[in-house]
Amino acid sequence: MNITDALNWRFATKRMNGEKVPQDKLERILEAARLAPSSYGLQPYSVFVIEDQGLKEKIRPIAFDQPQIIESSHLLIFAAHDNVNEGHVDDFIRLTAQAQGTDVSDLDDYKAMIKGAVNRFSTVEKMHWATKQAYISLGTAVTAAAFERIDASPMEGFDKDALDQLLGLKERNMRSLVLLALGFRDANDHHAALNKVRRSSEEMFIHM
Amino acid sequence: MNITDALNWRFATKRMNGEKVPQDKLERILEAARLAPSSYGLQPYSVFVIEDQGLKEKIRPIAFDQPQIIESSHLLIFAAHDNVNEGHVDDFIRLTAQAQGTDVSDLDDYKAMIKGAVNRFSTVEKMHWATKQAYISLGTAVTAAAFERIDASPMEGFDKDALDQLLGLKERNMRSLVLLALGFRDANDHHAALNKVRRSSEEMFIHM
Repeated sequence: MNITDALNWRFATKRMNGEKVPQDKLERILEAARLAPSSYGLQPYSVFVIEDQGLKEKIRPIAFDQPQIIESSHLLIFAAHDNVNEGHVDDFIRLTAQAQGTDVSDLDDYKAMIKGAVNRFSTVEKMHWATKQAYISLGTAVTAAAFERIDASPMEGFDKDALDQLLGLKERNMRSLVLLALGFRDANDHHAALNKVRRSSEEMFIHM
Repeated sequence: MNITDALNWRFATKRMNGEKVPQDKLERILEAARLAPSSYGLQPYSVFVIEDQGLKEKIRPIAFDQPQIIESSHLLIFAAHDNVNEGHVDDFIRLTAQAQGTDVSDLDDYKAMIKGAVNRFSTVEKMHWATKQAYISLGTAVTAAAFERIDASPMEGFDKDALDQLLGLKERNMRSLVLLALGFRDANDHHAALNKVRRSSEEMFIHM
């Protein structure tokens, strides 16, 4: 299977048929989101995986009534961690020591370097930084979904404050960023038949 | 080939060996970046593809002297379009009409809707919005590179103003965002042997 074919196959599906994404495919899409690279490896975001139909019904009016919210199999919500601090870095260093079989104290310089970087950001800059990292993960998930021939529709059009309130994200020190509906295109989605619109390679890439 | 295996194989390569990425693989990585989804399909970013060694030598000191800048085969620079305006939307609508075989005037409502959305952003919001779209493309490119077994090292640590000046990005109404070095890991890069550090699925995903 070719990744170009997979990405040409996909489109921002507006109507889904409610069919369930098989568990093994869902897991590979989530695993791709989890394995995505991030700044210093800090992964300053979480992903909500909404399967509950009642909850999707509550989210739909918050997202301009877009039908793929309830017609999806799973609705992913990428949420940035608010105000990443030294505690997050400590957690990351513990995780690193564990994964790499070293002592936490061997990573003191590394820890200080990352803390310095995080502390140089203002609160607003931290949110933009965390958001960018979450979008790398989003791009990875979209690509993995296409590869699995699962339809994926990214959605930025929703009331973030309302969704944060519904899911209690403020209490979790998180903010919702973007939705990704996963499922199967409905036969009636006429977008499937339309040619993809993309800037040409000649226009998009500047070779030097 | 499994996308999970590909993403587990990759790591943020710090030392590359200078070997050239074969043209067909480079083209598939760029094509993945080009096919990535974006808000309204506007693709408010461009990608510089730097192969010239002299230019890489000039970029290296701007990017904390990181050796993979000059040891890479190709250095990609993702750059956001500054101040996306109605003219960009007009271009996009022309492209859409051409791709889908319709008349531009049939897309008047669609055009007005997108212009309304773009005009609601402040200049600063536009840059954040464009940046997020470019990062989806970055995530797609990183995944495609892993799939092609090409090493890819994303880098946010560089002096953006200095790089913008070197490449004349201001005159192009663009701003540099992030670098992606493409190439082959050097045998001496000890990071290759280290276990990947990622938050666990249980911690990263919240099922509802």
